[in-house]
Amino acid sequence: MLGLKRSHMCAEVTECLEGQSVTVTGWVNKRRDLGPLIFVALRDRTGIVQITVDENSVSEELYKKAVSVRGEFVLAVKGIVTLRTAENVNPNMETGKIEIIADEIRILSEAETPPFGVADKGVKDDMRLKYRYIDLRRPELQRNFAMRHQALQITRKFFSDGGFYEIETPNLIATSPEGARDYIVPSRVHKGSFYALPQSPQIFKQLLMVSGFDKYFQVARCFRDEDLRANRQPEFTQIDVEMSFVDVEDIISINEKFIKMLFKEMLNVDVKMPIDRMTYAEAMERFGSDKPDLRFGMEIKNVSEIVKGSSFAMFEDSITNGGSVRGIKAEGCANFTRKQLDALGDYLKVSTKVKGLAYIALLETGEFKTTLSKFFDNDKLAEIVAAFGAKQGDLVLLCADSNNNTLLEGLGALRVEVAGNTGIRETGEYKFLWVTEFPLLEWAEEEQRYTAKHHPFTAPMDEDLEFLDSDRGRVRAKAYDIVLNGEEIGGGSVRIYRREIQDKMFELLGFSEETARERFGYLLDAFAYGAPPHGGIAYGFDRLMMFICGAESIRDVIAFPKVKDASCPLTNAPSNVLDGTLDELGLSVIINQ
Amino acid sequence: MLGLKRSHMCAEVTECLEGQSVTVTGWVNKRRDLGPLIFVALRDRTGIVQITVDENSVSEELYKKAVSVRGEFVLAVKGIVTLRTAENVNPNMETGKIEIIADEIRILSEAETPPFGVADKGVKDDMRLKYRYIDLRRPELQRNFAMRHQALQITRKFFSDGGFYEIETPNLIATSPEGARDYIVPSRVHKGSFYALPQSPQIFKQLLMVSGFDKYFQVARCFRDEDLRANRQPEFTQIDVEMSFVDVEDIISINEKFIKMLFKEMLNVDVKMPIDRMTYAEAMERFGSDKPDLRFGMEIKNVSEIVKGSSFAMFEDSITNGGSVRGIKAEGCANFTRKQLDALGDYLKVSTKVKGLAYIALLETGEFKTTLSKFFDNDKLAEIVAAFGAKQGDLVLLCADSNNNTLLEGLGALRVEVAGNTGIRETGEYKFLWVTEFPLLEWAEEEQRYTAKHHPFTAPMDEDLEFLDSDRGRVRAKAYDIVLNGEEIGGGSVRIYRREIQDKMFELLGFSEETARERFGYLLDAFAYGAPPHGGIAYGFDRLMMFICGAESIRDVIAFPKVKDASCPLTNAPSNVLDGTLDELGLSVIINQ
Repeated sequence: MLGLKRSHMCAEVTECLEGQSVTVTGWVNKRRDLGPLIFVALRDRTGIVQITVDENSVSEELYKKAVSVRGEFVLAVKGIVTLRTAENVNPNMETGKIEIIADEIRILSEAETPPFGVADKGVKDDMRLKYRYIDLRRPELQRNFAMRHQALQITRKFFSDGGFYEIETPNLIATSPEGARDYIVPSRVHKGSFYALPQSPQIFKQLLMVSGFDKYFQVARCFRDEDLRANRQPEFTQIDVEMSFVDVEDIISINEKFIKMLFKEMLNVDVKMPIDRMTYAEAMERFGSDKPDLRFGMEIKNVSEIVKGSSFAMFEDSITNGGSVRGIKAEGCANFTRKQLDALGDYLKVSTKVKGLAYIALLETGEFKTTLSKFFDNDKLAEIVAAFGAKQGDLVLLCADSNNNTLLEGLGALRVEVAGNTGIRETGEYKFLWVTEFPLLEWAEEEQRYTAKHHPFTAPMDEDLEFLDSDRGRVRAKAYDIVLNGEEIGGGSVRIYRREIQDKMFELLGFSEETARERFGYLLDAFAYGAPPHGGIAYGFDRLMMFICGAESIRDVIAFPKVKDASCPLTNAPSNVLDGTLDELGLSVIINQ
Repeated sequence: MLGLKRSHMCAEVTECLEGQSVTVTGWVNKRRDLGPLIFVALRDRTGIVQITVDENSVSEELYKKAVSVRGEFVLAVKGIVTLRTAENVNPNMETGKIEIIADEIRILSEAETPPFGVADKGVKDDMRLKYRYIDLRRPELQRNFAMRHQALQITRKFFSDGGFYEIETPNLIATSPEGARDYIVPSRVHKGSFYALPQSPQIFKQLLMVSGFDKYFQVARCFRDEDLRANRQPEFTQIDVEMSFVDVEDIISINEKFIKMLFKEMLNVDVKMPIDRMTYAEAMERFGSDKPDLRFGMEIKNVSEIVKGSSFAMFEDSITNGGSVRGIKAEGCANFTRKQLDALGDYLKVSTKVKGLAYIALLETGEFKTTLSKFFDNDKLAEIVAAFGAKQGDLVLLCADSNNNTLLEGLGALRVEVAGNTGIRETGEYKFLWVTEFPLLEWAEEEQRYTAKHHPFTAPMDEDLEFLDSDRGRVRAKAYDIVLNGEEIGGGSVRIYRREIQDKMFELLGFSEETARERFGYLLDAFAYGAPPHGGIAYGFDRLMMFICGAESIRDVIAFPKVKDASCPLTNAPSNVLDGTLDELGLSVIINQ
């Protein structure tokens, strides 16, 4: 580097080094020009240190060089660490007690005026991503990736110390007829054939168990060609874990230790052990969600018994048709305005399948403000709000539907929406929950068939095996999710390891024997040659890092993320290919948009 | 697991546990039936333990169960650890002093007779890969993946402790016009556009340096759609490293520490420090290779001055046309048969561009046996062999070509071939070497243009910048490879970080300004906003693991490898895709093979 060798990182230059000669390198965060004094705030990964050049004590050449530097120039600076005078001490900087009196400056790179400053707030996302290499210089992002690095090492150390082998599974794999849409990769050697990129290493990790590796983990890149929603990316990172000779308890137990260690080491947070558990059925009944946010209560109550027999058609029709009337209590929200209540009604309409919203506000005066006054007298209203334990100042929100699942899911969403509006979620807590005993199958209305709730390799619960033919919707699985503050951060299951049950499962999912054989024949074969009982879990690492970093967007924990249309504003991927490439692959583009 | 919980891994059950009740799980490695005594060798990841069932002391049910088990059945067995009688001790097994007297056996999975036994030798590759989950049960492969796991952890710990951040770079990236053939991934959202899978994270790691991350590493999956040669795979793992504010010495220095630590911890081998260095020019001149195997000498000597002026056309024409006559000495090989010598000649013809082979064998009798007797008298022959320091019993092999590079490469290959035939390579040593000062460019005859010897981002040596216009072939690069026993295990360079030099490089490579802008505009832009000097290295981790495991084939260190036509015999990837998939991507297959 033009003869200067770094001796310290910027933030390492503190008062302990007073009087010493140091060499630092980095980017010009800011240059201030006070006549004969030039101050350069030099920034690297660790922080900022102040360089001072005094016209009166340096060569003209050095002074002129100092005058010439601009924001984001890259410098190497040699100088003497000197204590600042008391009035110039900056208590907000690690290096705030000192300055480096420069005796040599090398301009390693000049910089054009960047499209936005590293310290700028509110820069638009598209600009941030187009100039990602400037965006990534921001201290918040530098910190996020330092934390992500640290979390990766802690994760690997935990599983490695626990006897898990890290084994890399392939990324060019066979396409799968199940799950989300695959990204595919055309084969040049076998024209007309395609690899898929893995949606997860699921089958390979199961094969590793059949291979006798006993305990496996991997920090695996996964791919899904789905339309992007908020905080989803076409490629994402999964902490992938599998174990042999275990049941649900063994898997939960080791993963609780992992979570405890990760949150302790990353955030000094003591996660309460054991983590609470709730069955899927209970979570749906009480919170209308399979990933309930337990930082607040607002449980769903069934008031069908109280309200039945009224002349309110919405309630009566729902109850008569096998449904129910349920609601939640929003504490202290009796004074919600008409506009706020309408917004909740609109939210239900747009985001859920529930149609109407009724409310009873128990005003501070003791009166009711309600949409139900035509149908219920005050005694009945009092009975209803009493079912929620409502006090004066509380608001009860009621919905009805002839389908109880629809109703519960709608109220579950409403619960989160109300909590978001009132800020009661923001407790600063980390509320973990295992949700267990998921249904094995769910009915896909569109496809008119059962699909796997988790995936086709999840084992049914032993006590429900008898319903596999008679009452499929009732069969529960040895499946579990781990939920943090209302978000699923991981999930897994004990797997099927007997060929006849896997065969049955494929049959239930509507695969012909031929399809099952063609797509998964090797797995069925593997089960025939000695498969151990096994199970595992996978964590969405990007989402986990959002929690750990306190990031608002998944893009803030991924170095080079894609935007909503799955493109990269920095590199312009995807793009056209060189002439001849498609010919070599035996492909042609039939639709050019 | 049917009520039995593993207490120990198989190899953990030693005489220390005598008298204790243990539960082990695993696969039946072998069952021997000695009338009333059944011996089951049970195998897991750690090793094998003997289970004994004595008809006279167990229930009929348990005995019958023991009789029914077959090879590769999966069992859980509970029993008492009992010392074997002296005559039954097996000193070759960790658990050879004990047996487990079973009091409970659970058959967790039955197994059909596998297509080959776990202990079988010489199973054909295609069978091994089709039934990979059985193949992987072999102790050698179990050991390889345990070692690979360990090497991964050591690698990450080394770089993490050294202040490197592990940062994940994307796998769905922009296609590149340079380097090997990309695997491409059609975009569904942007029909007619394609992502590429990365051949390396090269540009992203450089952007991370421009982003100020200072030190980066990643264990990165990379992809190349090339026709497979031995020990190449379409996807492979790279240890990828990049650093800012460094020169060649800094990078070499930290990587020597890495190599030293890795080989010490994995193999207890002390790699001699510092690792030897040789310039590319010297390596070519002395060994005819940019990755010389230094476990043996057999250096190439130029004998043009001695042989010139003869009537031997092959020699004379080569010398006259600017080439030379060079050779190697094969110690103790004077008695090579005609067949062996012909085979060497054939090898040259098939595998190199050198045409003919002459030889002078200095027999133990003091006589010469040579193809050159018509052209040189004994004095001249003696002078030639003296140039090689040949003794009685040695063989001198001579070639000539009008192109010195062609000649050196041919002799370099011949050198390795002879060493392979004579076994002198097999010294059990690990001979490392840095090869430095590679040419920046090489002339691609086929394309009639210069291409980058390493890649287009490699910096030219400062002292050769002046030749960038006048004498391109002469420009050396700040590039280095690390070679182990004649194989390149890693390579890297200091990178270009100034926009004007990168522009120049693209121009030298024959990219139009438009192409350079379209494909690499973002990198050129990045260089305009403050790029630090930076450089790095990448190791081929699979090949490194071959060395560390002593594996013959790269397939033995990759869990699910592909075969020569890039297909997977286990999963049958690549395969056809579901109806509608190509329509969704706006593609059609035009050639169906």
